[in-house]
Amino acid sequence: MATADQSRIFMKDVKRVIIKVGTAVVTRHDGRVSTGNFGVLCEQVKEINALGYEVIIVSSGAVGVGKQRLNYRKLVNSSFADMQKPQTELDGKACAAVGQSGLMALYDMLFTQLDVSSSQLLVTDSDFENPNFRERLRETVESLLDLKVVPIFNENDAISTRKAPYEDSSGIFWDNDSLAGLLAIELKADLLVLLSDVDGLYSGPPSEPQSKMIHTYIKDKYHNEITFGDKSRVGRGGMTAKVKAALVASNSGTPVVITSGSASGSIIRVLQGEKIGTLFHKDASLWEPSSDVSACEMAVTARECSRRLQNLSSDERNKILLDVADALEKNENLIRTENEADVAAAQDAGYEKFLVDRLTLKPGKISALAKSIRTLARMEDPINQILKRTEIAENLILEKTSCPLGVLLVIFESRPDALVQIASLAIRSGNGLLLKGGKEAMRSNKVITGAIPSNVGEKLIGLVTSRDEIADLLKLHDVIDLVIPRGSNKLVSQIKTSTKIPVLGHADGICHVYIDKSANMNMAKQIVMDAKIDYPAACNAMETLLVHKDLIKAPGLDDLLLSLKTKGVAIFGGPVAHEVLCIPEANSFHHEYSSMACAIEFVDDVQSAIDHIHCYGSAHTDCIVTTDDKVAETFLRQVDSAAVFHNASTRFSDGARFGLGAEVGISTGRIHARGPVGVEGLLTTRWIMRGSGQVVNGDNDIAYTHKNLPLP
Amino acid sequence: MATADQSRIFMKDVKRVIIKVGTAVVTRHDGRVSTGNFGVLCEQVKEINALGYEVIIVSSGAVGVGKQRLNYRKLVNSSFADMQKPQTELDGKACAAVGQSGLMALYDMLFTQLDVSSSQLLVTDSDFENPNFRERLRETVESLLDLKVVPIFNENDAISTRKAPYEDSSGIFWDNDSLAGLLAIELKADLLVLLSDVDGLYSGPPSEPQSKMIHTYIKDKYHNEITFGDKSRVGRGGMTAKVKAALVASNSGTPVVITSGSASGSIIRVLQGEKIGTLFHKDASLWEPSSDVSACEMAVTARECSRRLQNLSSDERNKILLDVADALEKNENLIRTENEADVAAAQDAGYEKFLVDRLTLKPGKISALAKSIRTLARMEDPINQILKRTEIAENLILEKTSCPLGVLLVIFESRPDALVQIASLAIRSGNGLLLKGGKEAMRSNKVITGAIPSNVGEKLIGLVTSRDEIADLLKLHDVIDLVIPRGSNKLVSQIKTSTKIPVLGHADGICHVYIDKSANMNMAKQIVMDAKIDYPAACNAMETLLVHKDLIKAPGLDDLLLSLKTKGVAIFGGPVAHEVLCIPEANSFHHEYSSMACAIEFVDDVQSAIDHIHCYGSAHTDCIVTTDDKVAETFLRQVDSAAVFHNASTRFSDGARFGLGAEVGISTGRIHARGPVGVEGLLTTRWIMRGSGQVVNGDNDIAYTHKNLPLP
Repeated sequence: MATADQSRIFMKDVKRVIIKVGTAVVTRHDGRVSTGNFGVLCEQVKEINALGYEVIIVSSGAVGVGKQRLNYRKLVNSSFADMQKPQTELDGKACAAVGQSGLMALYDMLFTQLDVSSSQLLVTDSDFENPNFRERLRETVESLLDLKVVPIFNENDAISTRKAPYEDSSGIFWDNDSLAGLLAIELKADLLVLLSDVDGLYSGPPSEPQSKMIHTYIKDKYHNEITFGDKSRVGRGGMTAKVKAALVASNSGTPVVITSGSASGSIIRVLQGEKIGTLFHKDASLWEPSSDVSACEMAVTARECSRRLQNLSSDERNKILLDVADALEKNENLIRTENEADVAAAQDAGYEKFLVDRLTLKPGKISALAKSIRTLARMEDPINQILKRTEIAENLILEKTSCPLGVLLVIFESRPDALVQIASLAIRSGNGLLLKGGKEAMRSNKVITGAIPSNVGEKLIGLVTSRDEIADLLKLHDVIDLVIPRGSNKLVSQIKTSTKIPVLGHADGICHVYIDKSANMNMAKQIVMDAKIDYPAACNAMETLLVHKDLIKAPGLDDLLLSLKTKGVAIFGGPVAHEVLCIPEANSFHHEYSSMACAIEFVDDVQSAIDHIHCYGSAHTDCIVTTDDKVAETFLRQVDSAAVFHNASTRFSDGARFGLGAEVGISTGRIHARGPVGVEGLLTTRWIMRGSGQVVNGDNDIAYTHKNLPLP
Repeated sequence: MATADQSRIFMKDVKRVIIKVGTAVVTRHDGRVSTGNFGVLCEQVKEINALGYEVIIVSSGAVGVGKQRLNYRKLVNSSFADMQKPQTELDGKACAAVGQSGLMALYDMLFTQLDVSSSQLLVTDSDFENPNFRERLRETVESLLDLKVVPIFNENDAISTRKAPYEDSSGIFWDNDSLAGLLAIELKADLLVLLSDVDGLYSGPPSEPQSKMIHTYIKDKYHNEITFGDKSRVGRGGMTAKVKAALVASNSGTPVVITSGSASGSIIRVLQGEKIGTLFHKDASLWEPSSDVSACEMAVTARECSRRLQNLSSDERNKILLDVADALEKNENLIRTENEADVAAAQDAGYEKFLVDRLTLKPGKISALAKSIRTLARMEDPINQILKRTEIAENLILEKTSCPLGVLLVIFESRPDALVQIASLAIRSGNGLLLKGGKEAMRSNKVITGAIPSNVGEKLIGLVTSRDEIADLLKLHDVIDLVIPRGSNKLVSQIKTSTKIPVLGHADGICHVYIDKSANMNMAKQIVMDAKIDYPAACNAMETLLVHKDLIKAPGLDDLLLSLKTKGVAIFGGPVAHEVLCIPEANSFHHEYSSMACAIEFVDDVQSAIDHIHCYGSAHTDCIVTTDDKVAETFLRQVDSAAVFHNASTRFSDGARFGLGAEVGISTGRIHARGPVGVEGLLTTRWIMRGSGQVVNGDNDIAYTHKNLPLP
C-alpha cells in the first residue's frame, strides 16, 4: 500500500548513502554486541550495495566488541587462582582501543559471507583541520566506492588528543553522530541515515501514547515543542546528538533520515521513498503548508466543524448545498478544462481504458450533479429525526434520534464525480469529511469548500494531500468513524484488510441468476441478458448463471446461450455444464469476471442453487427467475445476501434505482448498512431523555411504564 | 493477549531443547549466508541459555560458509590473468568440507560477542551403530551442558561413507532433520525446535489464502490432507523431511515445534507456551476431541445452523426459548451446585471481591432468567420484519427486511448469567453463536444446547474450549460478524485494539452531570447522589460533576458536597474547583473512578460544559440539570454522546430501564448500534424485491415511481 510520497520523492535521485550505526543499535542492554542487529545491518548493506547505491558506514560498537576480546584474553592468561579472585571491570578506553580491530574483524567476517568488501578508515578531529587531508580523504573514498568497497569510518580514539568537554566551538566533530554529519558534507552524500533503537524522532517519550512520530522535522514547528538535553522529552538522550547532526547535515544540503536499526529492511524502505522514520530536509519548511497538518489533526478539526454544522438549522444546511450546486455550475468550464487535462495525462500514461472512462466527466455530468444536489437539499432533513419515542415512567420521555456518524474518510480512485456526491451527502447529514484521492478532486473540492460558511469552517472537508499515505490514514481509528472507498475492487479489498475502522463497501460482486424449472424462459433471457450485458464491469452484474437441471435440453436455454454468445459473452461451464454443453471449464465459481464473460452450472433444485450461492457468492445480489411463488419465497427467504430479487435484473441493485437518492455505496458488510446505501449509511443514533428529576435508587422509587409513544 | 494454552502447557517443564537450524534459515536466496538470521539465532540462544535452558544446536549452513571461504581462497591465489578467465563453479562437497570449520568460526565469533561458549560435535551415521558411542556421546553432551556450553552438531560429511539413496531402511539418520530427531531421543531432549523459513506447517502452499497453519499436527486428521514428496502441497520440499523427523521424535516422546527461524523471539515464545508454529506431540490425538474442531470450523457450522434456525416459524423459534426456560428451572440445583464450587474456587484463589460477586448466581437469579426468556419469547418476532416498502416501478416492489447478523462471538469474564441472556437473544434473533469464557458457562450451556431441536443442530451455539486463544478467535473476521465482550473495561479495551471484527461494547464510561445555574438544587442533589452512589462500579455512574460557576457560593452546592462526603465519596477537584473548594486535585478528567470517588469542576456556562464533555468524556451518558428549557435543548442537541439526559439520573442508561428487554450491551461505538442495545443490535437488513421480469437496459425501458408503500 505504501507508496512514494511527495516529501520523499527526492529519494529516487539518491546514489551515495552514509549509514551511521549507533551504539544503541549494535549493543544490547547487557552491554554485549547485538549479533542480530549486526547481522541484519550487514545484510541490508549487501542489498543496497547490490542495487547500485554507494554505501559508507560510520559505526559505533568498538567498546562492546573490545570488552569481549579483553575478557577472553584475561581468561586465557588467567591461572586458576586468578579466576577465584574478584574480577575487576575492564577500562572503557582499553576496550575501545582493542575493540577497533575486533569490530573490523566482525564486519569483515559477516561481509565476507555476503561477498561484500569493506575497508577501515580511522579519522581524528584534527585531521580535518588540514585541507589537504580532506581532499585526499575524498579521493580515497571515491576510489573505494568505484571498486564497490564499503568504507567503514570510526573516530581514531587511540590517537585522538581531544579532551572533554568534547563539544566546543573549536571542535570539528565530537562523536560519531557529528562525524557522520561532517562526512555527509565532505563526501557530498545524497542521504544520511542515522540508525537508532527507536523508529524515529517522537514529540515525547516514544512509549507514551500521546507522543507522535514526527515524519518530517520542521525547525520552527517543532523546536519549541521538543526539549532537548537533560530535560529532553525525547525518549533517549542519544536523540539530542542525532538531531543536531541531522540539522547540520540537512542545512548543508544532505537530507537525513532517523530510523530503526533493528527492523530488517528499514534502510531499503527509506530509499524507496516510504515515509518511515523522521526526515530532515533543508526545504522542509517550504513544502506546501497544508501538508504540515497531519491527517489526524484534520480529522479532529473536521469533527469540530461538523458539530457546528449540526447546530445549523435544516434550512441553513440546505442553503450550503444550494450554494455548492450554483458554484459547480458557475465553475463548470474550469472544472471541465482541468478534467480534460487529467484525462489526457492518463491516456498518455497508458492507463487502461476503463480507468480513463471513469476519470472522464461526461457531458452534462456537472449539471446532473448540481441537479442531484438540489434534490438532496429538498429531501427531509436526515438528522435530528425522532425514530422512536417511549414513555419510561411518568414525565420521563426517551427519544431515539438520528445524528451524524462524525468523521468520514473517503478514498477515491479516479472518480471525480464521487467527491461531489459524497461531500454533498456529508453536508446534508452533518458529517465531517476527509478526502484522499487523485489530484483530479482538487478543483471540485475548492468549489465545494468555498461554499461552506465561516461559522461552520471550510475545514469541515479536508483534502488530504499526498504526504499522508493511505496506510497511515487507515490507522486513525480513534478519530475517523467510517471509511468509504470509491474505486476498484482491489482498492476496497486492500483497505478492508488493513484497517480497524469500519469500511462501507464491497470487495466482490459475484451475483447469480438462478433459472428455476418453472421459469418463463423469455423473461429469463431478458433478465440474464440485462444482468450480464447492461454494464459488465459493474458490481451488480451477473457472474454465474445457475440453471435447473430439467432445463438442460430446453430450447429456451439454447436460445438464451446463443443470444449471450452473439453479444460476445464468453461462457465457462462448471463441472456439469462444461460436459453437457461442451464449453470450456470455469477455473473457479468464486470469480468476478467484470467483463463480457460468465460461468454457467446446472443445479438439482432451488435448494442446491441456494447452497451454491452461499458457498461461492459474495452476498451482494442474487436473483431467481420462476413462475412458482412458493419456490420464489424459499429463495427470497433463504438466500443470505444483501439483495435478493424475484423476476428482476440484478442491475436494479443500486442506490438511485432503489430510490435512495444519492448513493454512498453498496455494502456487503452486515454491520451498520447493507446493500445499496443512501444517506442513512452516514447516520447513527443518540438517545435523548427528558425527565423531571427521576433517579434509579435501586429501581425502588420508580414505576416503569415503557409505553411506546407516537412519533411527532 | 496470548497466554499459555492447554496444548502447550507442558512447555513449563521443558529444560533441554534441541534447536535444528535449516539451510533455508541460514542461507539467503542467493546462496550466501543470511547474516541477519544467523545473528538473530545466536542472540536467541544467548537469551534461552541465560534463562537456564540447556540448548543443543543441530546446524546446517556449512556449504554456504564454505563457498565464501573457497571463493576468497581462490581470489587470494589468483593471478590477474586467472581472474580474467571464466570462473568455474565450486564443488558442493568441497564447500561443505571447508565450510565445517568456517561455520564453527562464525558461530564462535558471534557467540563470543554474547559471552556464550559453544563446541563442535561431528557425527556420522555409522557412529551410532556402536552402543558404546551412544553412551559416550550422552556423557560428553551432559558434561558440556553442565558447563553451560552449547554443543553444535553437524553430520561429518568429510568422513561419511554413506551413499545415495541416503534414506534407506539401513540408515540411522540421513540428513540434519533426521539427525535432530535421533538426537532428541538419544539425548532425552524435552523439546525439539525445527527452525524453518515459514512459520509452521500449512495445509497447502503457505502463500495461498485457503492454506491454514496447522497449530497441532494430528496424524489421522491431516495425513490424508497433506501430500508430501514431489507433489507436496506444502510450500517447500524441505517440509517433508521436517515432518518425518518431527513424527519420529514426537512418537518417541520428545514434542516438536516447527517455527520461523527469521522471526526474532520465536523460540522464546514457543518456550513460553505461546501457540505459534506447528506442534507435534505423541498425545495430541488423545486431547479432548472438541478442541480438534477449530473455532473457524465452529463458526462455519454455527452459520449453517443459524440459517436453518431462520427457516423455522416464529412459533417454532419461541418454543426453543420456552424449552430453555423450562430446562433452566429443572436444572437449577445442578447449576447452582456448580456455581457454588466455582465461587469457592475463586475465593480460594484470592480473586478480588467484585469478581467473586459477579461470578455468584444470586438467589432467584435462575427463575428471573427463566422469566426474562419467556418474556423474550412473547415479544414480536424481530426477524423477517418489513422495515420499509417501496414501489420501484409498476409491479416491482422492494422491501427492506430485518434479518440476523450471522455469527456472534461473545467473550465473557466471570458472568455466568450473561451466557443465558445472550444465548436466548441469539436464538430469538436467528443468530449463530460462539462463546468463549470461563468454565462456569459449561453447565448452563449444556442445558441450553440440549433444548435446541435436531433440525437446527446444537452446534448453533459453540462453546470454544481453551485450545483456541482469544487472540486467535479475534483473527476470524471472515467468519464472525460481531464480537460482544461481557466483562471488565480492560477486557473490552484489549479486544477493541486487537481485532478487525466489529466490537459491540464500551471501554470507558466517563459520564458527567452538569448542574446549570438555573438548576433546582434539590433535584440536582438527588440526581448526583443517584448517579454516583446507586452502583459506583457501573459504567453509567457519574465520574465528573460539572457545576456552573455562579453556583460556587450557593448553599445548595455545599449541601450536595456534604451529602456526597457523608456517604463516603472522595471528591477531587479540577484546576478551579480544587482551589476554590480546597480539595485534592484530580490527576486527570479522563478517568473512570468506578468507585466511591468523583471529580468536580466549575465551568463558565453550558457551552463550556459541552466542550469539557467532548474533550474528556467517553461519549457514554451525560446529563444536564436545569430548569431552563432553552439551555437544556442546547445541551441535548450538542452533546455528542450515546445518551444525553435532562433532569434524570445517568443510571437510567440501561437496556432494561430503556424498555429494550434483554440487553446485548451498551455501545459507545457509532457504527451499527449506540447506547443501550437490545435485540436490534443482533440484526441487520436484507433488500428483497419482487418483479415481473423488469430489466434496467440503461434505464431506458422502465418508469421509476419510487413510491413509499404502507407497511403491512
